[in-house]
Amino acid sequence: MRNHARALALTATLFASTAYAQDPKGDVAWDLLAGLTSEVGPRLPGSEAEARARVWAEARLKALGFSKVAVEDFRIRGYVRGRDEASLLAPIPFRLAVTALGYSGTTPDTGIEGEVVYFPTLDALKAAPAGSLAGKIAFIDHAMKRNQDGSGYGPYGQVRRQGPAIASGKSAMGVVIRSIGTDSHRNPHTGGTNFPDGVKPIPAGAVSNPDADLIARIARSGKPIRLNLTLTGKTTDNLPSGNVIGDLPGRDPSLPPILLGCHLDSWDLGTGAIDDAAGCAIITAAALKAQEGGKPLRTIRVLWAGSEELGGFGGKAYAEKHSEPHALAMESDFGAARVWRVQFNMADKALTDRIAAALSPMGIVRGSGKADGGTDVEPVIEKQKLAVVDLNQDGTHYFDLHHTPDDTLDKVDPAELAQNVAAWTEVLKIVANEAGPIAAAP
Amino acid sequence: MRNHARALALTATLFASTAYAQDPKGDVAWDLLAGLTSEVGPRLPGSEAEARARVWAEARLKALGFSKVAVEDFRIRGYVRGRDEASLLAPIPFRLAVTALGYSGTTPDTGIEGEVVYFPTLDALKAAPAGSLAGKIAFIDHAMKRNQDGSGYGPYGQVRRQGPAIASGKSAMGVVIRSIGTDSHRNPHTGGTNFPDGVKPIPAGAVSNPDADLIARIARSGKPIRLNLTLTGKTTDNLPSGNVIGDLPGRDPSLPPILLGCHLDSWDLGTGAIDDAAGCAIITAAALKAQEGGKPLRTIRVLWAGSEELGGFGGKAYAEKHSEPHALAMESDFGAARVWRVQFNMADKALTDRIAAALSPMGIVRGSGKADGGTDVEPVIEKQKLAVVDLNQDGTHYFDLHHTPDDTLDKVDPAELAQNVAAWTEVLKIVANEAGPIAAAP
Ligand SMILES: [Zn+2]
Ligand SMILES: [Zn+2]
Ligand SMILES: [Zn+2]
Ligand SMILES: [Zn+2]
Repeated sequence: MRNHARALALTATLFASTAYAQDPKGDVAWDLLAGLTSEVGPRLPGSEAEARARVWAEARLKALGFSKVAVEDFRIRGYVRGRDEASLLAPIPFRLAVTALGYSGTTPDTGIEGEVVYFPTLDALKAAPAGSLAGKIAFIDHAMKRNQDGSGYGPYGQVRRQGPAIASGKSAMGVVIRSIGTDSHRNPHTGGTNFPDGVKPIPAGAVSNPDADLIARIARSGKPIRLNLTLTGKTTDNLPSGNVIGDLPGRDPSLPPILLGCHLDSWDLGTGAIDDAAGCAIITAAALKAQEGGKPLRTIRVLWAGSEELGGFGGKAYAEKHSEPHALAMESDFGAARVWRVQFNMADKALTDRIAAALSPMGIVRGSGKADGGTDVEPVIEKQKLAVVDLNQDGTHYFDLHHTPDDTLDKVDPAELAQNVAAWTEVLKIVANEAGPIAAAP
Repeated sequence: MRNHARALALTATLFASTAYAQDPKGDVAWDLLAGLTSEVGPRLPGSEAEARARVWAEARLKALGFSKVAVEDFRIRGYVRGRDEASLLAPIPFRLAVTALGYSGTTPDTGIEGEVVYFPTLDALKAAPAGSLAGKIAFIDHAMKRNQDGSGYGPYGQVRRQGPAIASGKSAMGVVIRSIGTDSHRNPHTGGTNFPDGVKPIPAGAVSNPDADLIARIARSGKPIRLNLTLTGKTTDNLPSGNVIGDLPGRDPSLPPILLGCHLDSWDLGTGAIDDAAGCAIITAAALKAQEGGKPLRTIRVLWAGSEELGGFGGKAYAEKHSEPHALAMESDFGAARVWRVQFNMADKALTDRIAAALSPMGIVRGSGKADGGTDVEPVIEKQKLAVVDLNQDGTHYFDLHHTPDDTLDKVDPAELAQNVAAWTEVLKIVANEAGPIAAAP
């Protein structure tokens, strides 16, 4: 493709003086992943860094030959991180590895101090009498285990999403949870929590698994535990955020496009390599590869969404703004490990069979679950009742790294990243060349 | 053994109200390991915590039936940790995972700021012209890889031990090294450094491997790197430390004892589980197990040394104080992974053959290197020209955890810990029952 080659040449020129993470072999996915994590770094929703990421993304997508590249601004309620510290005061002094959760309440600079009440599960917390946690700090444990499909995150993730609000409802002065994660490193897992209207936000943090093990060990002994919790960050309204979109136009611009989603923002403890620079790298490289050997019939659009991590703001903003019809949506937001399964929400059984057959030589199996896309494309899927193809990545180790300081470039295996791009390319070559209507399952 | 059984019963009584880390199955090694890491926690040389550890150790050894249990005090030059922070200021803002090295120079509270000069190796730093680092911060990279015998630590560890002094000699205002470690987590590896007399101590820190990867990536691009380095800890003289020793008397108290060493102190980022609570647990459990089936001929003495981490103070103090003859020395200070090899420094070939034969059914091979004990027993070995048996542990993953926040209880596999105890017990049953003189190789 002449345009593509020209675009690549242009990239080299444009970025020779500014980029330092480009692969000399010209691997688009790796370049995007290394660039976003190394030339921008962490990209907290609503931050100056996320704004730099939009500038970077716009330039890269243009350089790669995308057209109609646009930054679409919106505003969000964000969380500005402060100083995160937690220390056991009794029975032994010990500095814990802690992170504030997004939308945590704010402690004074010297922190809050109180006795810890240990709850082995979220249900145990729910069963605590009203008012029983007054002046106390709740600790919520749980038993998440690793699964290939990541299915532990839904139920055990409720400890993070709902636990703080429930503890607040029982008058706790603060809350600490065992990180929603499957590793054994002293790296806590952050993530958003949720204080519904009428519930007082209280300071809410997560400690690493080894720290939670120690707390559980002490709790089993019946010894009183005292804790200082210092989380000085602040929930802040009206911060700037935005989506970045770009098109690779099809041969028939009148046909609704294929929409590919990922998110540009990340948590701030690491550099957001697996969550979700990898997703943006995969969909973008595959969209370009699908042009090789002949421009597809339909336009392929990439959506690099903003502020996914704090409530899916980007996906909602896109659905609101883009009422033009779409053909089908897909998303990559589950790391960079190999695609192991394909699932569908599609009326045309023959089309799904063709896609599954194209992926089968790669060892990708067909699942019987219903595809749902991901946070950044779900609002438009819901609104327009779009067909969906999910390429499920192996999540066995995803929650070792998810939302931790360890989410960095070195965690991505270039061969697995390339397998993702290859699988996405196979799917795009089929769906973007499908002339007839593409509809969701009835 | 009646005494041993009584001692165990006594332990249960004594600690029912104070200990919370005891295994109901009564596994001595696991109890000691869990207790020291959970009931005392980190044990920095010269700290209040190390003093608590001595009290704890004395009580535990007495409760386990050791006699002549003694705390032998000494004073050290220590390092009192402050606030450790480092942030890239250019080309992108990024907060690094950093730790001060022991004996680091002290920065102001607001840190020092300067341009980073990247050195791929220690030799590259050595080759820098005198004065060339004035006003700059040196970054020293290296290429340590994992080896079963841990042999990378000697040469690459020089980056930590000597690098800061060499950078100071070239007028650097500060120095940061890639952690001496083999993992890919955002957990830096601390450890002591050394500023010889006449060399000005400068602030010296280590960043995690993923952070070092990022710095190396930027350095390859030629872009200037600016860094703020804040390490407010202080080298402090005359801090209290001490050794704890205890004996299990042999049938013939006139024979020189077998000396078993480990160290009680630890770095403060984790809880010192593999370095070196595990060592103390292993030697102590094995000393007790060697009593089963008949009290050995020779006394077995355990030395839980203090302040190993900052210069082997405990081992030196022991050698100075204990001029009485010893028969043989051994040490456990390389984690808790399985013993894979035995090596000797022993004149009596027949005795070494018997030991190697006893270990062979456990899959333990015989090495041809010369046993040297470890930091805590080396001074007495040198002084008295003692025979030595080394039971080498598998170090493949040791430097993933060594001196990091990740050195916590969950990293120890109880089955591997038990294999260590079993291997040590085999050796002790032979050497502690050897009537004839036990001598080092000539
Ligand atoms: Zn995500
Ligand atoms: Zn996320
Ligand atoms: Zn050690
Ligand atoms: Zn050590």
